[in-house]
Amino acid sequence: MANDILITHIKGLAQVRENFSGFVAGKAMSELPVLENAYLLISNGLIADYGPMESAPSSAGREIHNASDCFVFPSFVDSHTHLVFAASREEEFVMKIKGATYAEIAAKGGGILNSAKKLRSTSEDELFEKTLERANEVIRLGTGAIEIKSGYGLTVKDELKMLRVAKRIGKETPLTVKTTFLGAHAVPAEMTKADYIKLVIEEMIPAVAEENLADYIDVFCEEGFFTVDETEAILEAGKKRLMKTRLHANQLHCSGGVQVGLKTNALSVDHLENIGDEEINVLKTGTTMPTALPGAAFFLNLSFPPARKMIEAGLPLAIASDFNPGSSPSGNLQTMISLACIKMKMTPEEVFNAVTINTAFALELSQSLGSISRAKKANVFITKPAPSIAYLPYHFGNNFVDKVILNGTLIH
Amino acid sequence: MANDILITHIKGLAQVRENFSGFVAGKAMSELPVLENAYLLISNGLIADYGPMESAPSSAGREIHNASDCFVFPSFVDSHTHLVFAASREEEFVMKIKGATYAEIAAKGGGILNSAKKLRSTSEDELFEKTLERANEVIRLGTGAIEIKSGYGLTVKDELKMLRVAKRIGKETPLTVKTTFLGAHAVPAEMTKADYIKLVIEEMIPAVAEENLADYIDVFCEEGFFTVDETEAILEAGKKRLMKTRLHANQLHCSGGVQVGLKTNALSVDHLENIGDEEINVLKTGTTMPTALPGAAFFLNLSFPPARKMIEAGLPLAIASDFNPGSSPSGNLQTMISLACIKMKMTPEEVFNAVTINTAFALELSQSLGSISRAKKANVFITKPAPSIAYLPYHFGNNFVDKVILNGTLIH
Repeated sequence: MANDILITHIKGLAQVRENFSGFVAGKAMSELPVLENAYLLISNGLIADYGPMESAPSSAGREIHNASDCFVFPSFVDSHTHLVFAASREEEFVMKIKGATYAEIAAKGGGILNSAKKLRSTSEDELFEKTLERANEVIRLGTGAIEIKSGYGLTVKDELKMLRVAKRIGKETPLTVKTTFLGAHAVPAEMTKADYIKLVIEEMIPAVAEENLADYIDVFCEEGFFTVDETEAILEAGKKRLMKTRLHANQLHCSGGVQVGLKTNALSVDHLENIGDEEINVLKTGTTMPTALPGAAFFLNLSFPPARKMIEAGLPLAIASDFNPGSSPSGNLQTMISLACIKMKMTPEEVFNAVTINTAFALELSQSLGSISRAKKANVFITKPAPSIAYLPYHFGNNFVDKVILNGTLIH
Repeated sequence: MANDILITHIKGLAQVRENFSGFVAGKAMSELPVLENAYLLISNGLIADYGPMESAPSSAGREIHNASDCFVFPSFVDSHTHLVFAASREEEFVMKIKGATYAEIAAKGGGILNSAKKLRSTSEDELFEKTLERANEVIRLGTGAIEIKSGYGLTVKDELKMLRVAKRIGKETPLTVKTTFLGAHAVPAEMTKADYIKLVIEEMIPAVAEENLADYIDVFCEEGFFTVDETEAILEAGKKRLMKTRLHANQLHCSGGVQVGLKTNALSVDHLENIGDEEINVLKTGTTMPTALPGAAFFLNLSFPPARKMIEAGLPLAIASDFNPGSSPSGNLQTMISLACIKMKMTPEEVFNAVTINTAFALELSQSLGSISRAKKANVFITKPAPSIAYLPYHFGNNFVDKVILNGTLIH
């Protein structure tokens, strides 16, 4: 067991919400509770106490970190990633720069099927090693909990392989991991869509459930991928095997994804680049977490989700990285935070709520993560010196995370 | 004197151009010479030799760095920054997010005059310390040479103070520094424009020249700031005191800045968000380096310069950070490289040329910097492991610089 850790003289202890296990929506998103000149005491892997510096406990026998000039935040919770993949796809990035269309890239073997091809020929151990590098990278950038999807296997064997790797990341790193079965990410080249959906429902879902490999089930509900009806059938099949639902909705088209998300009580509907008043009104009827993935909109040069409109309508909003080799090859939530401020006109306070308590809620982790609270898991980071919280997204492109503490242990 | 350094097993030694002191333009920008499986020998602060690994010299007595899986590049040359400033301005960033216009921010004391107010009340030593932090930050991110402008003083005394701080950065850090007098950055609140221009020409320029504080003179040629005629008069006054010219041109309007740049034989015209065929044709008549500042276009949500059109017209293009507290609060050229690829549709090869040899040329440093060449200054960095050069901008938001060597010494 690690020593107790005492962080002293914290310029601002951010996101202090005692016993908080909900989310924030609408106007409440603009409030980020900050305790100035504070201490934080960590013991047995948990947040033991915090308060104003003048009431700090003795430093005797404790590992001390002085955080004057620095902020302390609860670690980011990244609620949407494809962290397990076999290889980067920068060759497609260059093709896109040179003007190739999606269809041309697909014709040359690009896209999700490119990742599937590479993943199928990569052993489980090798896949783990590659994923581990990315996991360590995002840990250093402030992420403490992460959702990881399958979806590059597209065979029973390879989907299971991906999910086992994702689970192993949760065991062999200090990250808190939730796994999502996304067999319905694309249709493999060797099958018809009808046959593949049959495989997903009749073989993959039972096999995933048998090994207890997935907390959630997800579908890429999009024109050219899976229709609303297909999405619903697949999600319902997952629900029967105790996987709650979440989905890729309204990225490229106003596809009806949001509606099927609400209909299946999805924990989140993610992307939302193409939504209007109708989808916003539907979202207001449930607790499904709308989730923006600004890295993908940025990298693909798409329009961003209408964050202001959603927040003004009283909705909550979460932000995740969508780390994947095709459309968002970055797991850096700090970058996503700057993008959300600059491109989606969210205030720094709104964005920090979006990447902590709102993503924690969307991953059913808000009892133990997402805010500074006694008895929550001691997943926090200390920033580099900064004059204000707004400075962090403003000084874009620079890593503002200095020290990372996960499960009560200094990692970095 | 530091030990000799031998970098071995380099996956790709990039930008190898022996005895190269020019720039690349048009189609030639897409060529980035890379030597695979190479070594690089550094001695007495200079690049002593390089070549294929099989002909590497003995490692005896030398500091060895194994760079298998890694690339080695010449350090970035950042040809446009406002590195000397007294305070960040994230409060204006938040006002902008909340919808404030430029005029509203100015009415509340924001903008360049906000920086001037803060700078005037900051001592030279304090200003140096703040600038030093930023210098060390950009060094860790791969920058080895940097241009630094004045322009937040707007009095004789404070402009000199800024330039002395900039010069001191060149002496007390391993950065190669070029300084630029930018008195004509804005008109101070306490003066008429005519009186201020008189002050710039009759007092500031002579005082700057007297102390030999500036290599270059620059003017913010823009509607609401300085007209083409005013710009020309100020630049010509600088030229008489042996400062070569460069200027802020065509950022917010098609202002005639490019034309006055060519007319005064400017080393560079910077920004260029608003140029058309006429400006491109003018640029083809000289060797003035067109310079894009993608950080500002990104941060201000402006359109980006028409890079493809310029390159297809046969022009060279340089890229710099524009690091400043108002419109581009980042000195991270890696971020600018990703922005140039994603938003300006430049290939990775074009962009790496734009931030090394082309910026070196624009700062008259191409005899000693900007490429891997025997007898050039040993300013290089070793990347983290990467599968390809294109991976570096593709994996956006992540620092790809691992080890930095400046003037032949390992810095970081």
